[in-house]
Amino acid sequence: MTIVANLDHTFSSATVAVERLGRDSRSPMRDVLAAEDPLEIRIEYGPRKRRTNRAISVTMRTPGYDEELAAGFLYSEGIVRDASDIEGVSGSSPDDQARNSVCLRLAPEVEVNTAALNRNFYTTSSCGICGKASLLALQSVCPPRIKNTFEIDSNILFRLPQTLRSRQQLFEQTGGLHAAALCTADGSLEAIREDVGRHNAVDKLIGRTVLDDGPPLRDRVLLLSGRASFELLQKALMAGIPLVAAVGAPSSLAVQVAKEFDITLVGFLRSDHFNIYNGAERVRTRERIAI
Amino acid sequence: MTIVANLDHTFSSATVAVERLGRDSRSPMRDVLAAEDPLEIRIEYGPRKRRTNRAISVTMRTPGYDEELAAGFLYSEGIVRDASDIEGVSGSSPDDQARNSVCLRLAPEVEVNTAALNRNFYTTSSCGICGKASLLALQSVCPPRIKNTFEIDSNILFRLPQTLRSRQQLFEQTGGLHAAALCTADGSLEAIREDVGRHNAVDKLIGRTVLDDGPPLRDRVLLLSGRASFELLQKALMAGIPLVAAVGAPSSLAVQVAKEFDITLVGFLRSDHFNIYNGAERVRTRERIAI
Repeated sequence: MTIVANLDHTFSSATVAVERLGRDSRSPMRDVLAAEDPLEIRIEYGPRKRRTNRAISVTMRTPGYDEELAAGFLYSEGIVRDASDIEGVSGSSPDDQARNSVCLRLAPEVEVNTAALNRNFYTTSSCGICGKASLLALQSVCPPRIKNTFEIDSNILFRLPQTLRSRQQLFEQTGGLHAAALCTADGSLEAIREDVGRHNAVDKLIGRTVLDDGPPLRDRVLLLSGRASFELLQKALMAGIPLVAAVGAPSSLAVQVAKEFDITLVGFLRSDHFNIYNGAERVRTRERIAI
Repeated sequence: MTIVANLDHTFSSATVAVERLGRDSRSPMRDVLAAEDPLEIRIEYGPRKRRTNRAISVTMRTPGYDEELAAGFLYSEGIVRDASDIEGVSGSSPDDQARNSVCLRLAPEVEVNTAALNRNFYTTSSCGICGKASLLALQSVCPPRIKNTFEIDSNILFRLPQTLRSRQQLFEQTGGLHAAALCTADGSLEAIREDVGRHNAVDKLIGRTVLDDGPPLRDRVLLLSGRASFELLQKALMAGIPLVAAVGAPSSLAVQVAKEFDITLVGFLRSDHFNIYNGAERVRTRERIAI
C-alpha cells in the first residue's frame, strides 16, 4: 500500500476538496483544515564530554512555533527554569521542519531527572495515584509561591472573548483550533497561539517568554478559547500566572489546582457574565470600588 | 502545605461554590463540574510462571467505565485483538476505584510488543517522524482491511446532532465534556460515553464492545461531539468503523487517515448541512436514489 499525499499543505493549514451536503443540495467545494502533524521533542544534556541526546515526547501539533512549543513544554515539566538553561535549539532549518523534530540543547549544569520525564503523576505503586497525588507532585516541582496582588477589572474581562475571537486567524479559516493568549491587566492581548492541541497552544505561548528570558508572567492573564483542565492550570502555575480565564468550563481537578496554589480561575467567560471558581479578590467590580 | 479537598464529589461530577458576575451583579452560586482524575492503566502479561505487571499509561479522565477505557485503549494500540486476549480486569472494587488504577490481565499467549507501547509514531531517527510515518505505523498495526459497503441516508445524519445532544447528560450539567456515541444506519444511538478527554470517550465506547466480544463495528457510525483528530480516526480504524461523523472540524491528518484507509469522514455535522471529507459513496441522498 502506498501513502497518498493529496492535501495541499501550507504551513499551519491544508486545503482539501470536500462534498458539502445541504437538505436539498450536494456540491463540491474546497475547505481549509487545521494542520496536524507529530512533533518529536528531543533534549541534549549532560556534561560537555558526555552529552546525551534523547526523545522525551511526541505531540500531535499544528506546525509552527515548534521551538517555543519545546521550550514551553520543558518549562512546564520543570526541566528548564529560564533561558540560561537553554544553550540552543536545533530544528529551525527548513530541513528540520520537514522532519518534525526539534532538539533543545541544555546547559551542562542542568540536571535532568529522568523520573520526572515519565510525567509527574506517578507515585509509589502502594499509594496508587489520585488527584491528590497529582497535586502533591505539582508541589514538588513548582517554583516557590509568592503572594500575588495582581488585580483586573471585571469590565476588562467581559471584553476579552471578543478580543480573542477577533485574533483567532486560523480558527476563522478552519473552525478547528484552540487558542491561548497572554493579556495584560488593561485588556491588551500581547500574544496568541493557535493549535489543534490546547496544551500545545499554551506551551507555545509560555515558551516564547522562556526563550526570550522575558518578564515573569506574574502580571498576566492566561486566556483560553476552550475548557480549563488540570494540565493547563499546571502550566499556568509553573509560569507564575495569577489568573486563568477560560471561555469554556473548568474540570474538577483544574479547580483544585487553582484553590491549592492560589490561582484565580474564571470559567464560562462571556461578554456579559462569567464564573469565578477561585481567587475572586483579584477581580475588581464597580460595586467593590464604590464601597 | 496541606492538600485541601473542598469539592463535593459524586462519581463523574463535582459541585463547587462559585461567584457569578454579571454586568451589574455579583452573587454566590453552586456549579457542577466535570470530574477529572488520573487513571493508571496497567497490564499483567507473559507466560503463567513468569507474569509481568507494568503501568503502560496514565490518562486524565472522567471517572467511570474505567475497565472499558483500559480495554479500548489496549485495543486501539493493537495490544489486544478480542475478548479472548483478556483473562480478567482488576480495578472494579471500590478500593481500586479510589486508587484510580485498572489492570487488564492478558492471556499468556498474547505477545506484548514493548516498542508498540511507546506509541506508534516513532520511526528510525534517520527518517525522523512526519504525518506520513504516522500513517505507515498505522498500516503495520491495523487489522486487514476488507471493503466495507456500509451506507447511510443523509437525512439520518442530519438528525444525529440533536439525538446526541439530548443524550449528553453530563454535558448538560457541566458544559465541560466531550461525547462519543455508536449509531446504527437507521440513526439509533446504541451507546454514548462522556469524558473530559475525547480519546477517553472513544476508548470507553469501543472497550465495551471488546470486553463483550460484541459484534464487529463494521456497520456502525462513530459520532463525535467535537473535532476529529488523527488519534480518533486511528481508533475508528482499529475498530473497523466505516464512518466517522464529527460535529466539529477534522484536522488535516484525520482526513489523511480517512483517505488512506477508506473511512468515510463527515465534519461540521449540523441539522441542515455537513461536509464529506472522504468516502461520499457511503452517504445516500434523495438525488442519488432518484437517478
